[in-house]
Amino acid sequence: MANFFTVLSLLYLSTLVSCCDRCDGQVKFEPLVLVHGGAGKADPTKATKLLTGVRLAARVGYKEMAKGGCALDAVEAAIRSMELDDDFNAGYGSVLTIDGRVENDASIMDGVTLKAGCVSLITDILHPISVARKILDKLPYTYMAGNNAMRFAEGQGVHILKTGSLVSDSALKELNNYKNQLNMSTWFIPDYHTYKGTIGAVAIDSCGNLAAGTSAGGSIGKLSGRIGDSSLIGSGTYADNNLGAISVTGGGEISLRYNVAQRIMQNMNYMSTNAQQAAENVLDEMNKRMKATAGVILLDKFGNTGIYFTAKSMPWAYQKRDSLHFGIFKGEHFSEKISSQ
Amino acid sequence: MANFFTVLSLLYLSTLVSCCDRCDGQVKFEPLVLVHGGAGKADPTKATKLLTGVRLAARVGYKEMAKGGCALDAVEAAIRSMELDDDFNAGYGSVLTIDGRVENDASIMDGVTLKAGCVSLITDILHPISVARKILDKLPYTYMAGNNAMRFAEGQGVHILKTGSLVSDSALKELNNYKNQLNMSTWFIPDYHTYKGTIGAVAIDSCGNLAAGTSAGGSIGKLSGRIGDSSLIGSGTYADNNLGAISVTGGGEISLRYNVAQRIMQNMNYMSTNAQQAAENVLDEMNKRMKATAGVILLDKFGNTGIYFTAKSMPWAYQKRDSLHFGIFKGEHFSEKISSQ
Repeated sequence: MANFFTVLSLLYLSTLVSCCDRCDGQVKFEPLVLVHGGAGKADPTKATKLLTGVRLAARVGYKEMAKGGCALDAVEAAIRSMELDDDFNAGYGSVLTIDGRVENDASIMDGVTLKAGCVSLITDILHPISVARKILDKLPYTYMAGNNAMRFAEGQGVHILKTGSLVSDSALKELNNYKNQLNMSTWFIPDYHTYKGTIGAVAIDSCGNLAAGTSAGGSIGKLSGRIGDSSLIGSGTYADNNLGAISVTGGGEISLRYNVAQRIMQNMNYMSTNAQQAAENVLDEMNKRMKATAGVILLDKFGNTGIYFTAKSMPWAYQKRDSLHFGIFKGEHFSEKISSQ
Repeated sequence: MANFFTVLSLLYLSTLVSCCDRCDGQVKFEPLVLVHGGAGKADPTKATKLLTGVRLAARVGYKEMAKGGCALDAVEAAIRSMELDDDFNAGYGSVLTIDGRVENDASIMDGVTLKAGCVSLITDILHPISVARKILDKLPYTYMAGNNAMRFAEGQGVHILKTGSLVSDSALKELNNYKNQLNMSTWFIPDYHTYKGTIGAVAIDSCGNLAAGTSAGGSIGKLSGRIGDSSLIGSGTYADNNLGAISVTGGGEISLRYNVAQRIMQNMNYMSTNAQQAAENVLDEMNKRMKATAGVILLDKFGNTGIYFTAKSMPWAYQKRDSLHFGIFKGEHFSEKISSQ
């Protein structure tokens, strides 16, 4: 009986998308791309648009692997798709600093080599995740920020847009709402919830390589110069073929201080939990201790998915073969068959 | 017999320095301040100077607690002491960017609240660790970088020095040596070893509160805009009263990608290892996997010390009651009695 399932499983895997060029050609794992669009309190009237965005991103990422890309390529492609969408808090449409600017953080990590690229405080670049990827690929450093990160990106052929090009009407409207609640003289910071969320992706390719990435505009009305967890390895993003791959979203300060990503990785490492169990263990513990909510998507080293949020909502989606799975509020898990075109 | 030791232990603890104002007045732990001056390949002719620097820093930190300060105050004071010393790679005397500038990273973390302050890409500020502390104390954010971090610091009364004030003669000489080995046209980066190292401190106060901090000028000849692990929570620095406190030094890129600090914390958490065992487990594993050396100082939640480096050298020192312990090369552990003045 065991042999029958082994043969069936091998036949099944042999029909999957081809391995990327880093692999030995053997198809060992079922490729999967899982994305999120930010933990928070999504406005139910925006749910359909947010789900459209994450469903598209999961498909775009998966297609990248079908073309022969690795997990890392799939993560970059999925995040680029959401950076174009002004319903998410990354790239175009990012929430604005107190002085009305877009200032982006992003990070990407390769589970094969543990190489990572991180970038912060960049402006007027449509795809911050691709700057992070260029840092990973081209520099002996891991993390660059500010004007010199932009100069490096420009030297690599990244187009620097006209100042303010990433400021969307929806982001401006939200900043005005925020400012109306803010009292600068007392440093009172309102508990303002934007429907726009951080974005992230994790992927496993057919050779079992893992990758993760996260991209964000940060917190609405932030001081220019503030860095959030989305650019930080071990807080917002982590990938290690020996452990798993994860992208974190939620209150950036708490995720940073709690090192949510690495704590979940080590929960899987030492407790032999799967992705879902590890996510629940660590986020529930964090919520209890820090009184703060968050959301995560992850894959363990076997390719099992983990999707968990202690916030009210988190749009997520993943593609696995010809099935697209998605949800936004607690307990939701929809699926649909998609054409391979 | 057990009772005898309990009474003896309580009598002994009652003679220790008083608790900081955050505690309930009960003296439960033996205060200790442990510092490092950077893992690397120290020039033996500099060993005496480096040991003088770390010994002084441990005493300065300990004295801060004797005056009623918390672990966090002790860490800040110990690091400030080394930021003044141009034999270390932090504050005055930091190694220089390729264009001859000092650009500093620092972070500090409070194990009680898990609040942290992180700062990067600041120049012309003598004590980067105190900017990190002001971020921790005053801002709703955890991490600030660049010109806006400097503006915030200035608003908090931090003096911005005349441009270039932190550039020491020794750092300039080292940059010239480095440049002579560098081939900019091929992006060849020499394996250049400066004797100057990242600095860090961990402390436990008499109530058992833990804190950690790290401060660095980064890697010699770095591109301006590069951020290293010293400013990063979970890579360079971590403190959690439930786990321990740690400061990491070594090749900044690897420590960042490996999340050395949080991996060691979780090794103690899940494996019930003490500080020394956890440090050895994780650094040995990292050296094997990543082919890179590093060094750490840490305290576990019971106040046990861990001092370990896979590099050739790491100056370290700690004060415990009236004893100062120190060393720099492998296997060294010297101690001396000191006056309480």
